[in-house]
Amino acid sequence: MKPLLKPAEECGVFGIFGHPEAAKLTYLGIYALQHRGQESAGIVASDGKSLRGHRGMGLVTDVFAEPDFDRLQGRAAVGHVRYSTMGDTSLTNAQPIKVDYLHGSLAVCHNGNIVNALPLREELEAAGSIFTSTSDSEIVIHLIAQSGVRDLGEAVPKALGRLEGASSILFLEENRLIAARDPRGWRPLCMGELGGAVVLASETCALDIIGAKFVRDVEPGEIIEVSVKGVKSSKPFPPEDPRMCIFEFVYFSRPDSRIFGRDVHRARKALGIELAREEPHDIEADFVMPVPDSSNNAALGYSEGSGLPFDFGIIRSHYIGRTFIEPTQHIRTFGTRLKYNPVKELLADKSVVVVDDSIVRGTTSVKIIDLIRNAGAREVHLRISCPPWKYPCYYGIDTPTREELIGSSLDIDEIGRHIGVDTIYYLSLEGVRRAVGGRQMTPEEVAGRFCSACFTGEYPTPLYKEYAKDMLEKGLFSSKMF
Amino acid sequence: MKPLLKPAEECGVFGIFGHPEAAKLTYLGIYALQHRGQESAGIVASDGKSLRGHRGMGLVTDVFAEPDFDRLQGRAAVGHVRYSTMGDTSLTNAQPIKVDYLHGSLAVCHNGNIVNALPLREELEAAGSIFTSTSDSEIVIHLIAQSGVRDLGEAVPKALGRLEGASSILFLEENRLIAARDPRGWRPLCMGELGGAVVLASETCALDIIGAKFVRDVEPGEIIEVSVKGVKSSKPFPPEDPRMCIFEFVYFSRPDSRIFGRDVHRARKALGIELAREEPHDIEADFVMPVPDSSNNAALGYSEGSGLPFDFGIIRSHYIGRTFIEPTQHIRTFGTRLKYNPVKELLADKSVVVVDDSIVRGTTSVKIIDLIRNAGAREVHLRISCPPWKYPCYYGIDTPTREELIGSSLDIDEIGRHIGVDTIYYLSLEGVRRAVGGRQMTPEEVAGRFCSACFTGEYPTPLYKEYAKDMLEKGLFSSKMF
Amino acid sequence: MKPLLKPAEECGVFGIFGHPEAAKLTYLGIYALQHRGQESAGIVASDGKSLRGHRGMGLVTDVFAEPDFDRLQGRAAVGHVRYSTMGDTSLTNAQPIKVDYLHGSLAVCHNGNIVNALPLREELEAAGSIFTSTSDSEIVIHLIAQSGVRDLGEAVPKALGRLEGASSILFLEENRLIAARDPRGWRPLCMGELGGAVVLASETCALDIIGAKFVRDVEPGEIIEVSVKGVKSSKPFPPEDPRMCIFEFVYFSRPDSRIFGRDVHRARKALGIELAREEPHDIEADFVMPVPDSSNNAALGYSEGSGLPFDFGIIRSHYIGRTFIEPTQHIRTFGTRLKYNPVKELLADKSVVVVDDSIVRGTTSVKIIDLIRNAGAREVHLRISCPPWKYPCYYGIDTPTREELIGSSLDIDEIGRHIGVDTIYYLSLEGVRRAVGGRQMTPEEVAGRFCSACFTGEYPTPLYKEYAKDMLEKGLFSSKMF
Amino acid sequence: MKPLLKPAEECGVFGIFGHPEAAKLTYLGIYALQHRGQESAGIVASDGKSLRGHRGMGLVTDVFAEPDFDRLQGRAAVGHVRYSTMGDTSLTNAQPIKVDYLHGSLAVCHNGNIVNALPLREELEAAGSIFTSTSDSEIVIHLIAQSGVRDLGEAVPKALGRLEGASSILFLEENRLIAARDPRGWRPLCMGELGGAVVLASETCALDIIGAKFVRDVEPGEIIEVSVKGVKSSKPFPPEDPRMCIFEFVYFSRPDSRIFGRDVHRARKALGIELAREEPHDIEADFVMPVPDSSNNAALGYSEGSGLPFDFGIIRSHYIGRTFIEPTQHIRTFGTRLKYNPVKELLADKSVVVVDDSIVRGTTSVKIIDLIRNAGAREVHLRISCPPWKYPCYYGIDTPTREELIGSSLDIDEIGRHIGVDTIYYLSLEGVRRAVGGRQMTPEEVAGRFCSACFTGEYPTPLYKEYAKDMLEKGLFSSKMF
Repeated sequence: MKPLLKPAEECGVFGIFGHPEAAKLTYLGIYALQHRGQESAGIVASDGKSLRGHRGMGLVTDVFAEPDFDRLQGRAAVGHVRYSTMGDTSLTNAQPIKVDYLHGSLAVCHNGNIVNALPLREELEAAGSIFTSTSDSEIVIHLIAQSGVRDLGEAVPKALGRLEGASSILFLEENRLIAARDPRGWRPLCMGELGGAVVLASETCALDIIGAKFVRDVEPGEIIEVSVKGVKSSKPFPPEDPRMCIFEFVYFSRPDSRIFGRDVHRARKALGIELAREEPHDIEADFVMPVPDSSNNAALGYSEGSGLPFDFGIIRSHYIGRTFIEPTQHIRTFGTRLKYNPVKELLADKSVVVVDDSIVRGTTSVKIIDLIRNAGAREVHLRISCPPWKYPCYYGIDTPTREELIGSSLDIDEIGRHIGVDTIYYLSLEGVRRAVGGRQMTPEEVAGRFCSACFTGEYPTPLYKEYAKDMLEKGLFSSKMF
Repeated sequence: MKPLLKPAEECGVFGIFGHPEAAKLTYLGIYALQHRGQESAGIVASDGKSLRGHRGMGLVTDVFAEPDFDRLQGRAAVGHVRYSTMGDTSLTNAQPIKVDYLHGSLAVCHNGNIVNALPLREELEAAGSIFTSTSDSEIVIHLIAQSGVRDLGEAVPKALGRLEGASSILFLEENRLIAARDPRGWRPLCMGELGGAVVLASETCALDIIGAKFVRDVEPGEIIEVSVKGVKSSKPFPPEDPRMCIFEFVYFSRPDSRIFGRDVHRARKALGIELAREEPHDIEADFVMPVPDSSNNAALGYSEGSGLPFDFGIIRSHYIGRTFIEPTQHIRTFGTRLKYNPVKELLADKSVVVVDDSIVRGTTSVKIIDLIRNAGAREVHLRISCPPWKYPCYYGIDTPTREELIGSSLDIDEIGRHIGVDTIYYLSLEGVRRAVGGRQMTPEEVAGRFCSACFTGEYPTPLYKEYAKDMLEKGLFSSKMF
Repeated sequence: MKPLLKPAEECGVFGIFGHPEAAKLTYLGIYALQHRGQESAGIVASDGKSLRGHRGMGLVTDVFAEPDFDRLQGRAAVGHVRYSTMGDTSLTNAQPIKVDYLHGSLAVCHNGNIVNALPLREELEAAGSIFTSTSDSEIVIHLIAQSGVRDLGEAVPKALGRLEGASSILFLEENRLIAARDPRGWRPLCMGELGGAVVLASETCALDIIGAKFVRDVEPGEIIEVSVKGVKSSKPFPPEDPRMCIFEFVYFSRPDSRIFGRDVHRARKALGIELAREEPHDIEADFVMPVPDSSNNAALGYSEGSGLPFDFGIIRSHYIGRTFIEPTQHIRTFGTRLKYNPVKELLADKSVVVVDDSIVRGTTSVKIIDLIRNAGAREVHLRISCPPWKYPCYYGIDTPTREELIGSSLDIDEIGRHIGVDTIYYLSLEGVRRAVGGRQMTPEEVAGRFCSACFTGEYPTPLYKEYAKDMLEKGLFSSKMF
Repeated sequence: MKPLLKPAEECGVFGIFGHPEAAKLTYLGIYALQHRGQESAGIVASDGKSLRGHRGMGLVTDVFAEPDFDRLQGRAAVGHVRYSTMGDTSLTNAQPIKVDYLHGSLAVCHNGNIVNALPLREELEAAGSIFTSTSDSEIVIHLIAQSGVRDLGEAVPKALGRLEGASSILFLEENRLIAARDPRGWRPLCMGELGGAVVLASETCALDIIGAKFVRDVEPGEIIEVSVKGVKSSKPFPPEDPRMCIFEFVYFSRPDSRIFGRDVHRARKALGIELAREEPHDIEADFVMPVPDSSNNAALGYSEGSGLPFDFGIIRSHYIGRTFIEPTQHIRTFGTRLKYNPVKELLADKSVVVVDDSIVRGTTSVKIIDLIRNAGAREVHLRISCPPWKYPCYYGIDTPTREELIGSSLDIDEIGRHIGVDTIYYLSLEGVRRAVGGRQMTPEEVAGRFCSACFTGEYPTPLYKEYAKDMLEKGLFSSKMF
């Protein structure tokens, strides 16, 4: 049985060229991108003659120790953090992937999801390629090696031209760093500058941590080559309408980052303001509170929009380690209590608006609302800063199957009853677009440039469903991808 | 040269009697108290016949693994977390301290600071006692062993009667759990109930995590004995005016706890409201922001009191591990950047009020204000939710020497210039007392029940200064304690 | 229930005074003594002003890392290795024990077994002493602290004068190293010299590893004080007939050591020669083989004495780690196979003499003989280089209870049948004494100077049996000690 | 710069098919082969549907923990241990290599050295293959994947037919285990049987540990396929004269193994007997001693041949851990003392014959002889149980460059003077052949079937020297390989 291909979804990438402490700055960069992936971390550095790397399972601060940097010499480096998919504890899928091929050594860091990974892999295997991981990113390297093209600057667009789906990707060879973003531009990728060195990163927060200046976003469909000769930009692919991920604003990116030309904090706050504006229920609430920390900004926006006071009805603990002793069954809502504790005196006998950024399976929401109710809240009104999440993402956000998405199987009222709130409301897609657009774009323009397939099911690419159906019947992979 | 005695300051204690999973619940309890001490953690459990313990350096989740609990059987247990004093990596000061003596086995967990530790230790050593740690808590055990009293219920008040200073303390023997709080009651200690079991903890957040009900505070000067016969309370010490630590409200306790009869969240928010009420400067600010997370509530209060919007101008990272690779000198304000990142788009060209809970040495404040300025803030107004910290605490809060306290060596204007803010203001002591008192106590009543020696220098006990001076001249210990 | 007191049996001690790298040389010294104890290791060093220590569970090379030695500065140090008693994984019994008391700091390293530990501990507890370990060595420190004597040189003989049983012991204070051996002299202790520094160690192999010269043995009943003033010897105790442990020659010491005035290798080989001389059976064997490595020398001696060729019929693996995966029940004699593998081609159809140094419970012998038989040996003749071990040792060799000693419950023929050999023979006590005496002492002289209580049951001290019986009836400790 | 290709030299392989505890038995098998490689260890198991693996750096007992075997389910498994090449701490070269390719999943374990690795890799890279390791074993997998052949049973001979050099190799796919030995048969590989399961291993000691019966050697040039249909043997390659490695008898294999049809213990002892027979010097020695443990058997043989007594003049410590604290410069021959200690009383004023199995660089020999001299030996006569090692091995034994081999740069007398012995003698090649042949083969037959290129320089394959020279000039790899 063939293993299921795993997309390089929910990752962060960072690269730097032209700095004497390239590897250490990369370490800081991927540390700042840790929220994009906590499963594994890795760095490959080039001293101009050869590439050396170090990868490991776990958080950036756990994977690297001082002596590792003795090996990671040189003025160029790339780094990667990857999301924790439950149960996959294998180092083989950690990135950067580093290989030797006809034209030298090559390291690759990928954030995205190649939707035609299976047919490409079949084609490559038929030509004799062997695969050592289940990551779809390995395909990219094979395409480059099989292209027969000597110059990586030419091989990269040729290889990427074969891919469908999302790819914000960095390539490092001995003397060159190449960054590329697919023509739809699902995943963010920005360029910065630090004392003459060129920096590339998933989000601007990784520029900030090293004190680099933000230069501009890498554009959808753009390829950037960085070498001692300087920076060279090209757009070799047929142009397509961009389909930037609207969910990066709702949940995934850090609030202190600027992505897709707009700062996340402001967008997230605007989502809360729109929520308040759309408020359909006639509720008398005492205050509005976030599910900390990811919905802090949206809750602030709701407070601003509604005039309701903002307060911290729940305290979040940050000491949670990787292994936690399994305690007894004596404790209700146990797992949730490790992370959240309600402020009883504040909640007692109050009517509260709780703002959250999304509901996936609903299990966590049930427990949080239960905590709030048990702390004495009289009324709980749940507000979600985006529409119901009904469709899996195939472009780089980790999602359960459609059956597991509560937004797909229950209607909104049912969800509210399931979770146990007095009222529930999801922000409309129109509202999301208005918030994300701000003063810069109309909602129509946002609709034209952003992907909202997770809410609408309108996937901007074919999903190889017939192919998938065929494969599924043969038992070759699980339903999760399609 | 004798080593300096180390007080059991900045600790958290937890005990439970009468539950089949006593040790695992203790694990959760001290996990909830982790903010009170991150250096070491330990648990001792009793199965009614003997005591068994496990201690280690580091966070609760790192010190304990599942198999440790196979040994920690029984229906009673005590646990402890201890603050990280730089450089002291030795397990010998970790608690609970477990010993055998004439009348059996005994474990002790202590939060506090015994100000007459040195004369007591001298006296005990003269009588032939040996000490295996530099913790002042070891003195308590010797006093019990030397008392010659068979019944621990009698030996405890006799031993504690010799101590001056702060002690919230738990004793576990084979069949009894005893809790005591010194007559001044500097440190909090509360009692809860879980399915018939009695729970004792530094803060109520440790009751919440296991689903225990809050019963009441252990009162200053009270001793609680818990055994199969039930709970017995006594007040064996001559009564004194309580001197509860006002700084627990300002900074140390968790906001979701209730201590000293009042919930911390509300008190902390009231500090911000008072700050706004006292606002002496005519400033035109765009918004108010906390230094997250400890001053979130005070900043919210300032927002409420002043009418200024509240926003998150700084994002705090929670991925910081224990070892961090030392990077380059290329990066300004480096250490601070690992923890905090400013939201540039929000701060650019703005005038902001920054609320913080205290300034110790001033070094961190300098860096944070620098980050905010560099992010483009036009004006920065710093507001501190308590008076300048001028005097070391000798009752259980870790403090540098008086010389290192910036509040002791500079006046307020000088501090403001040193830190680089446009204006600075510290809440008055009157304001702190008003906030802490709320509707329950007048400021005068608060003054009569709370210790504010760190602001005023009016220590409620002798500090053994002459004795200390004498010892210092002999080179027997450092100036830190006195 | 009081814990059972654990003797500091099967330990190695090392001390050095007057060398700039005292701690590192101590590390090497206890590494060379590792065979005397694998449970825990520790070092305390003095820089002339204070003592600093590091201890841990496990082998010397696992307990210490380079940075530990940054703390262990100074020109004097003591170190200790301790035997692994199954299940006792607690650091509290590791040595050196380091304490503070009236007259300063003190570290103690003890090899031996105090037979009157229980009455002494009772007496000390009655006087108010507390105990943090279950090691009998802690008693010594209390006796010193309680003596009230200022000078350690006077306090040590006063304290040791209270002890009965075996004690080779080192004391380190800020500016002095004191070594003592009890008047019976059960355990070895020697003195060496390295570039002006004085070295003290359980065996000479620890002098060899650091290139120190052997000076002489510390004599039974002798106390050696080492300070900047030089070396001072005294014999403060009433003289007694020495009772040096004959089993150190049979099994415990390293063959390249010289102890009790005689080199172990030669003594061990002489045991084999005596075995051959006493050979009572008319056997026709092809060759003689050891159970490697501990009986290599005795087997060589048997070969020399009998004229039979020597060969390695069993190969021993040295890769055995601490945790080994439990495999299946498919494999006979599994645990033994991890350590030993027979050389089939050599054993096939042969008659072999197998020499071993002792049989404790007999379980390992059963498995080894089974391996040899399965490899095709036609006849197996087992020869043991000492008499049957019938009585527990109370003077520093770890032993099971009398019931568990196969030599105590079965006669020699029964043992042979149980183990499955064709013939079995144990060396006579006379033969052991002849081997140990060599040309230097007659067997009678050896009988007068060495303890052979494990073979004869003639214990040279009272064993506090009535006291013990009384305690046992009260359930206060296990039968193991008496 | 391309990395140097690293041969899979000095490895051990183990495979089993048809046993419910395949992975655990493989664990034991590679544990028994640990002497063949201590750098890394790995196991891949098949449950009939998919392959799962676990690899790590270090000893077998350190790499695997009980939970790893939860994943390694199934009735077939292969395992590998690999030699520690200094400085290569990367997991990427650890085996088994596990990949997915057109026809499923495949794991490979290789012991040997492919001499035409570079031209094959160039050819494969030119065809678009990418390489993730620097191991030459990866080439084999590419050859299989590129063969386009569906059936592994057909693909393996096709791929192996392209290789020149040494290969004892195991392949595991979902339902089949394939073993192959190259036509020259440099490295050993044997077949065993355990309760119906088929076992394949580098040496018979790996059969013994699991209680498997030895069936026969896999023959040079033979391929064995094991599946539920049974065992199928074929010899698809053009026959060549075998060139089995004579050095496996001299040093590399375990003495309790049987390889190449002869037991190692007997061969090694015969080497010592031949040494005594050839003894050219008129020496009067007191005894003969080995450098333990590897030359124990040869020294025994010398004793038997010469009539000199055998004794252990040096004791070897087995506690050496992986990290050892670097001590002072005060200690002469320090590193050697950690491992070896002379028995002074035995050596003092004696004339000794020291038998060793080989001299590589000579540095260790210098130190050992120095230890012996310092222990007082009057005369030291060094005897080596094979001819001088003059030429690097390219067929699976790790060797330094020719310049580093002392046998290549100095003549025998010079070596003796360099090492500091009174006399030195190396066994003749004729003597080695006589010892290895025993009664089964004449020396001429041995010469015709065994490789002794390390002594003679007569390499049985081309070494691609011209190719290498060309590459060296281009700086593409180091001189080490050629």
